[in-house]
Amino acid sequence: MSEQALPKTHNLRIDGARLWSTILETAAFGATPAGGLNRLTLSPEDGQVRDWFRAACEAAGLEVRVDALGTQYALRRGRDMSLPPVACGSHLDTQPTGGRFDGVLGVLAGLEAMRSLNDAGIETEAPLLLVNWTNEEGSRFAPAMMASAAYAGEFTTDEILAKRDAAGITVAEALDAIGYRGDEPVGSQKIGAFVELHIEQGPILEAEGRTIGVVEGGQGIAWFDGSVTGFESHAGTTPMPRRRDALLGLCEIALAAERIALAHGPSAVATIGESVIGAPSRNVVPGRVAFSLDVRDPKSGTLDAVEAELRAALGEIGTRRRLDIDLTRIWRKEPVPFDPGLVAAVESAAESLGLSRRRMVSGAGHDACNLAAKVPAAMIFVPCKDGVSHNESESATQADCAAGADVLLHTLLTLARGPRP
Amino acid sequence: MSEQALPKTHNLRIDGARLWSTILETAAFGATPAGGLNRLTLSPEDGQVRDWFRAACEAAGLEVRVDALGTQYALRRGRDMSLPPVACGSHLDTQPTGGRFDGVLGVLAGLEAMRSLNDAGIETEAPLLLVNWTNEEGSRFAPAMMASAAYAGEFTTDEILAKRDAAGITVAEALDAIGYRGDEPVGSQKIGAFVELHIEQGPILEAEGRTIGVVEGGQGIAWFDGSVTGFESHAGTTPMPRRRDALLGLCEIALAAERIALAHGPSAVATIGESVIGAPSRNVVPGRVAFSLDVRDPKSGTLDAVEAELRAALGEIGTRRRLDIDLTRIWRKEPVPFDPGLVAAVESAAESLGLSRRRMVSGAGHDACNLAAKVPAAMIFVPCKDGVSHNESESATQADCAAGADVLLHTLLTLARGPRP
Repeated sequence: MSEQALPKTHNLRIDGARLWSTILETAAFGATPAGGLNRLTLSPEDGQVRDWFRAACEAAGLEVRVDALGTQYALRRGRDMSLPPVACGSHLDTQPTGGRFDGVLGVLAGLEAMRSLNDAGIETEAPLLLVNWTNEEGSRFAPAMMASAAYAGEFTTDEILAKRDAAGITVAEALDAIGYRGDEPVGSQKIGAFVELHIEQGPILEAEGRTIGVVEGGQGIAWFDGSVTGFESHAGTTPMPRRRDALLGLCEIALAAERIALAHGPSAVATIGESVIGAPSRNVVPGRVAFSLDVRDPKSGTLDAVEAELRAALGEIGTRRRLDIDLTRIWRKEPVPFDPGLVAAVESAAESLGLSRRRMVSGAGHDACNLAAKVPAAMIFVPCKDGVSHNESESATQADCAAGADVLLHTLLTLARGPRP
Repeated sequence: MSEQALPKTHNLRIDGARLWSTILETAAFGATPAGGLNRLTLSPEDGQVRDWFRAACEAAGLEVRVDALGTQYALRRGRDMSLPPVACGSHLDTQPTGGRFDGVLGVLAGLEAMRSLNDAGIETEAPLLLVNWTNEEGSRFAPAMMASAAYAGEFTTDEILAKRDAAGITVAEALDAIGYRGDEPVGSQKIGAFVELHIEQGPILEAEGRTIGVVEGGQGIAWFDGSVTGFESHAGTTPMPRRRDALLGLCEIALAAERIALAHGPSAVATIGESVIGAPSRNVVPGRVAFSLDVRDPKSGTLDAVEAELRAALGEIGTRRRLDIDLTRIWRKEPVPFDPGLVAAVESAAESLGLSRRRMVSGAGHDACNLAAKVPAAMIFVPCKDGVSHNESESATQADCAAGADVLLHTLLTLARGPRP
């Protein structure tokens, strides 16, 4: 087929109503009374939605294969099967009290894109691939995003198969129980590029009234454990200036972390999510407080700077308040930059569709962040209500889901060299 | 005996070595391996020390009676038995991991004063009374200081007899078990004045290098329960300015409470002893924090002012950080002023003995605070190491204990109209 004969696609849109009805249809698998989903990875409910997904893909003419960790790959043939497939997808597993959109949207929007291409009779140059990654959530088996990490070579298949849930069941046993231990070696599936549509799981798009987040990468993360040690003393007999109050030390640390993160804004965030007083009592000045600290930023250098400034603040607080303050970094994950070409493709697709948008980084981890270590990757975000996720009340509008799926479709068309727009 | 014939007493001192040896001797009853005491009220060990105390008092010529709540009264006759006795004392019960001085010093210093008067052949005009109050500590039966409260009319004897410990044993049963349910009606023992020597249980005297605390009264106390409610959100995806972090609200509240207490210094104290994040997680911005607040000051008006200023600060913090802050006062005890004449008598005694001293208030509750509602009362403090009490490591020096007992002796002599100094 010559270039001139290619059909134009600039008016092509996915079917928003059909996408919405598949979201509702699959929400029956693991539905909770509060309107959310409890579809832990490799559970019977996860098996049901996988069966549904395989059947839906096959009905759309896709060829479905399963790898040794249960990840489902649905291939739509292209004109040139020597080209690596252009992939999209996300995950169909959920948190135990999860919502209907986290992961689900990315998979079902990919399915909808395939159906829409079928309806329009469009063939792409490169093949397309739709992926449902096993265990993105990490609620049943740790770590989260384990199948995409294994795909990218971070773990061996055997390492992952041996992981156990709280009941002692291994990943291998759980895969066998639902019939999803496939025969494709992990990592053998060729992928030329990977694009993941996801709800933002944060408040930025909603607050700014924008529809599309053009995701430039995943943040770096540093986790710390800390403690403040002062001296336990009587709340009635110890004058204020003589106290060595560990809680007041923690309070200054938390406010310093906020101040430092704000100074590195708007991207940097710092959170003390856990703070526990040792032997707390209403009438005792706290002598010891343990705390956690989570610092994130898209730039490695900013993580370094926040940590250095915080340690300086801790030194000052400890000296002034006569407290012993310890801060130990227990984990650090470097930022993941997405492929600039893919990011530009996402942005162009949003622009050509006339959708309001902004560049942003992903605050949470996603399979696309793992994929980025091995293949060009990018993400598309759409707003979710109040930024709430990992919650049965998680919500997104039909219009935003459709807009995200349209951006996904047009990004795939660009990357797989579909007909000219 | 004429005024002229009265022996001079300005050189009279208690026997510090004898006082110290009785402290060590009674520390055998309920001794813990770590060098402290476990002598819960009305326990077998409390029965043993009560028996020792009765025998020691009788050996010193005192007449011992026991009231219906087990409080022991040891009377030393005066020349004019129509005068109400001038009393001293404290308590011989301890915390489960208590020290050797809390309460014990006040009782044994009173015994030493009686012995020293005997040695010197001194008779006072008014009789003297040495009291061992039942259950000052409150560790086994609540409330603390129950016998002195009943003496002052705050509870009926039957109310107290019906109180149960954690094992369901009543005060009445516990008294019977050690043979200390006496036949004197509670409150019938006449007391003309009450002076209690005690370790400070705080760091002020030690820090200032002073020997005697001339205690002007007990502080007022206000207890509050509070909560801060914001919005739980993802630590990675929620920009700093959009957060409603309940922990940061608590941090500002704690620092405001410190600032306000300092502004009402040196007397006012404010303590957040308990602070608990609801559903804490390392990567979740805290949505709710519950906390306790303890505010104390010797002046009722200062308690009011601290509360009012704190509520104003809470309003400002809540508005600025978009947090709902609740603060509920759950208990308030008004300050207890001691009798100015008795306080002056304590101060004069310390001055005449050439001891360094300062006026202060009691940060903790004591039997003398209950007595003050019914009879003129005052207290004498001596330093304890590092301000530590309610701990097996509680410590005081022999010299300070002797100095406190000397002040007690001379205060008793002044109040009971002993020989002129």
